[in-house]
Amino acid sequence: MIILNGGSSSGKSGLARCLQAVLPEPWLSFGVDTFVDGLPAALRASEAGIEFAADGGVAVGAVFRELEAAWIAGLVAMVRAGARVIVDEVFLGGAASQARWERAAEGLEVLWVGVRCEAAVAAGREMARGDRVGGMAAAQAELVHRGVRYDLEVDTAHAESVACARLIADHLGRA
Amino acid sequence: MIILNGGSSSGKSGLARCLQAVLPEPWLSFGVDTFVDGLPAALRASEAGIEFAADGGVAVGAVFRELEAAWIAGLVAMVRAGARVIVDEVFLGGAASQARWERAAEGLEVLWVGVRCEAAVAAGREMARGDRVGGMAAAQAELVHRGVRYDLEVDTAHAESVACARLIADHLGRA
Amino acid sequence: MIILNGGSSSGKSGLARCLQAVLPEPWLSFGVDTFVDGLPAALRASEAGIEFAADGGVAVGAVFRELEAAWIAGLVAMVRAGARVIVDEVFLGGAASQARWERAAEGLEVLWVGVRCEAAVAAGREMARGDRVGGMAAAQAELVHRGVRYDLEVDTAHAESVACARLIADHLGRA
Amino acid sequence: MIILNGGSSSGKSGLARCLQAVLPEPWLSFGVDTFVDGLPAALRASEAGIEFAADGGVAVGAVFRELEAAWIAGLVAMVRAGARVIVDEVFLGGAASQARWERAAEGLEVLWVGVRCEAAVAAGREMARGDRVGGMAAAQAELVHRGVRYDLEVDTAHAESVACARLIADHLGRA
Repeated sequence: MIILNGGSSSGKSGLARCLQAVLPEPWLSFGVDTFVDGLPAALRASEAGIEFAADGGVAVGAVFRELEAAWIAGLVAMVRAGARVIVDEVFLGGAASQARWERAAEGLEVLWVGVRCEAAVAAGREMARGDRVGGMAAAQAELVHRGVRYDLEVDTAHAESVACARLIADHLGRA
Repeated sequence: MIILNGGSSSGKSGLARCLQAVLPEPWLSFGVDTFVDGLPAALRASEAGIEFAADGGVAVGAVFRELEAAWIAGLVAMVRAGARVIVDEVFLGGAASQARWERAAEGLEVLWVGVRCEAAVAAGREMARGDRVGGMAAAQAELVHRGVRYDLEVDTAHAESVACARLIADHLGRA
Repeated sequence: MIILNGGSSSGKSGLARCLQAVLPEPWLSFGVDTFVDGLPAALRASEAGIEFAADGGVAVGAVFRELEAAWIAGLVAMVRAGARVIVDEVFLGGAASQARWERAAEGLEVLWVGVRCEAAVAAGREMARGDRVGGMAAAQAELVHRGVRYDLEVDTAHAESVACARLIADHLGRA
Repeated sequence: MIILNGGSSSGKSGLARCLQAVLPEPWLSFGVDTFVDGLPAALRASEAGIEFAADGGVAVGAVFRELEAAWIAGLVAMVRAGARVIVDEVFLGGAASQARWERAAEGLEVLWVGVRCEAAVAAGREMARGDRVGGMAAAQAELVHRGVRYDLEVDTAHAESVACARLIADHLGRA
């Protein structure tokens, strides 16, 4: 299991797709966006679910956390059932978010990858994407890494996604 | 857990979203499309993965089946972890596909819903969507229901999605 | 030139795609969504541009109107240059919106098609789509037809898109 | 009018969105993808329309060229009607493609921008996007610039989209 953690517009999804292309075995790839798309529409704009503020802030509520716990349990179960899974995540809670995954994945081998992208660059890419609330990239660029422990960090501001993917693949190969 | 089974363009996804809106509790919703999007791009056009023929035929291979088994195990684990989950599925193997889910979900309460839509209507809706290979809707309209046992069947050719969703919600309420 | 006018979730886009499939000659198809996607992101949430209220209301401002006039002139120019063009439109201003198109298209043969879908059905389809602000379908179902004159009206609540497309094709064939 | 020309996955669309954000006046933005989406589905996989080969090659036929001429005339008409328009284009025919636009836009002020991205980098970004036929990026990286004359060239392999957008905005400001 590979868990990629990075802020909005840091390039996690592209990195995940490159990893799928670069790694020799078939890996499934899911992300927090997959989970959010699976929520009822009503929870995608509610205090109990997830709220996107106009300034790029993101807040999640109790129902979101409950369903997310089941989602995490499900992805971990896919790995226990024999699948290789890449997860792209946004640890809004930093170390506390990582702890949730660690408890769920106990006994499994997890490669923790920090996906860094300096705030200014991520904000520019957010502008280029045009489909995200402005401000999320800058707000999350540092926040999501607070207290998180990684096996490997990549910097998408200074290397292309495919080069970052190759670094991760090399790390796996050596392990 | 609610499992909706129907052919391409039979209206499963819209029905799932209506169910999420109509049911009082929060339900997650995932489908075979979520799984296929999670596959490596290379498997989305390969014999080992999934192949979409120009005539609307769909064939899946050994690697697809292995990863799908893990995917099914994962969705079932989400339910065991306390989440309510709607799955929209295309049972290309009919009764054999259902058997795979039954084995994985042993001990869980599953509502099996057949989503019927006559071939001609589904083919027209496929044309209106414009994002699917032509012929899939007609090819799958009957095929996916062969030998499958349902608790409830809905017919999206003769009722709107939201009305079908209310039928399912009523059935759950009475159960 | 065929201009389809109807409220949100009345099925205009699907109807346009069916028309493209049913008509023997190649027709281009563009809609108000194409135009809105072409706007700067900043105008997609501003008083001068277009604003989507939480209750489904839509308001457009002065800059939107200026750019829209150029957009309309452009689509009309495609027709004068020899292309067949289907436009799917939402006449928020009813007869006044139609008048804008009539002035721009002076001298051209235009088929005006009203795309009706009763509010309750359109609202259900909006729920099934899951990607639109709730309430738009109901708010626009009658509004967009006020004072508008049609050559032909179709009712997507009581007929499939492809059947409506055939009605329009027949009308063109007889003309 | 600003015409951006570059190969697939060279970053034209992101650059166009950044330009819209960076330029002080409202600019519309459309691209060859807008046009292709407006074609009948049947032409999106036919010899007369456009064909995407498995190796990334793209071929267009006679009907595509006829409709494209009308599309170009339409975009030019939007500019003559007073709108500022950014066009993102892929000059499969190199200088011949540019000549088509020059004839249509006679008398208008056009800023020609070459969007360069070396083949290897573009191919990596194509892999990261995951929604394009593999090989298009590499096949088009040089091809589309053959014989084309620019007012300005930007290199998205060595600068972020927003930085490239600022270069173009500066050029416009000085002109």
